[in-house]
Amino acid sequence: MKAVSRIAVALAFAAAGTSTVAYAQMKPEDAIRARQSIMRVIALNFGPVAQMAQGKLPWNKDMFVANALRLEAIWAMQPARFFVPGSDNPVAGAKIASFTDSRPEIWSQADKWKAANDRMGDAVANLAKAAKAGDEAAMKTAAGALGKSCGGCHDDFRKK
Amino acid sequence: MKAVSRIAVALAFAAAGTSTVAYAQMKPEDAIRARQSIMRVIALNFGPVAQMAQGKLPWNKDMFVANALRLEAIWAMQPARFFVPGSDNPVAGAKIASFTDSRPEIWSQADKWKAANDRMGDAVANLAKAAKAGDEAAMKTAAGALGKSCGGCHDDFRKK
Repeated sequence: MKAVSRIAVALAFAAAGTSTVAYAQMKPEDAIRARQSIMRVIALNFGPVAQMAQGKLPWNKDMFVANALRLEAIWAMQPARFFVPGSDNPVAGAKIASFTDSRPEIWSQADKWKAANDRMGDAVANLAKAAKAGDEAAMKTAAGALGKSCGGCHDDFRKK
Repeated sequence: MKAVSRIAVALAFAAAGTSTVAYAQMKPEDAIRARQSIMRVIALNFGPVAQMAQGKLPWNKDMFVANALRLEAIWAMQPARFFVPGSDNPVAGAKIASFTDSRPEIWSQADKWKAANDRMGDAVANLAKAAKAGDEAAMKTAAGALGKSCGGCHDDFRKK
């Protein structure tokens, strides 16, 4: 439970409104692992949504809605918080977080990166809103917009 | 999008009721990465819940409820599905899934493992139910039960 406890403290502080300090205290390898895990779970949920929106998978409204709402819940974890100081490079000796694709511009162009992150948040919110409303065309449009917003960070702030 | 597409197909087939076949077709390193990411996101959410239940963090009902419902949504991804054939050992050359703590008993004692997995599912459902009902004592009790259910798999089926 040691790792969980440390993360628990970080998240609790975050909830109490002192997130920057608490997250900065996370060990870089834990932060890298956290953000990579969150992004992977996002991909697992967005994958079928994108494929359905593009007509590459049969339309399954229940799955689309479930994944869209799950994306909203996971995005609320604020993965951007886990780009803590010192997590810009792989951590020697760490079991899992043995790499990072982060580019230094995340930190050197923080405002631009945050703006791209916020656009993704807006796109996630719009997708969830469309899913709740239940109109298929609007859901597919929102999924396409979300896909484009992913590129806002991945194109400029992730290594090729 | 190549990895996402492959996962998308797997999940779509799963939703269509042919999950075993589709998940078995995932590349082992993708499956390992998926399950490790899901379990990590579960830990990130359960951490503060457990700490609040144990009085190690100040009670924050909003955070407890949000995390409990997020756990329910993530558990619905059925992480057990990602223990596909061939994913019992690290995959040479894989970028991320360079290790697995899975013990061979996951496959050799599959029924026992599935039963432990189901107990965790029940505990997650109970936690979410308690969170929706809003009684603090019941929420804390349910969190403790969930913590115990984690051990059902980790004690017997995960390497120390």
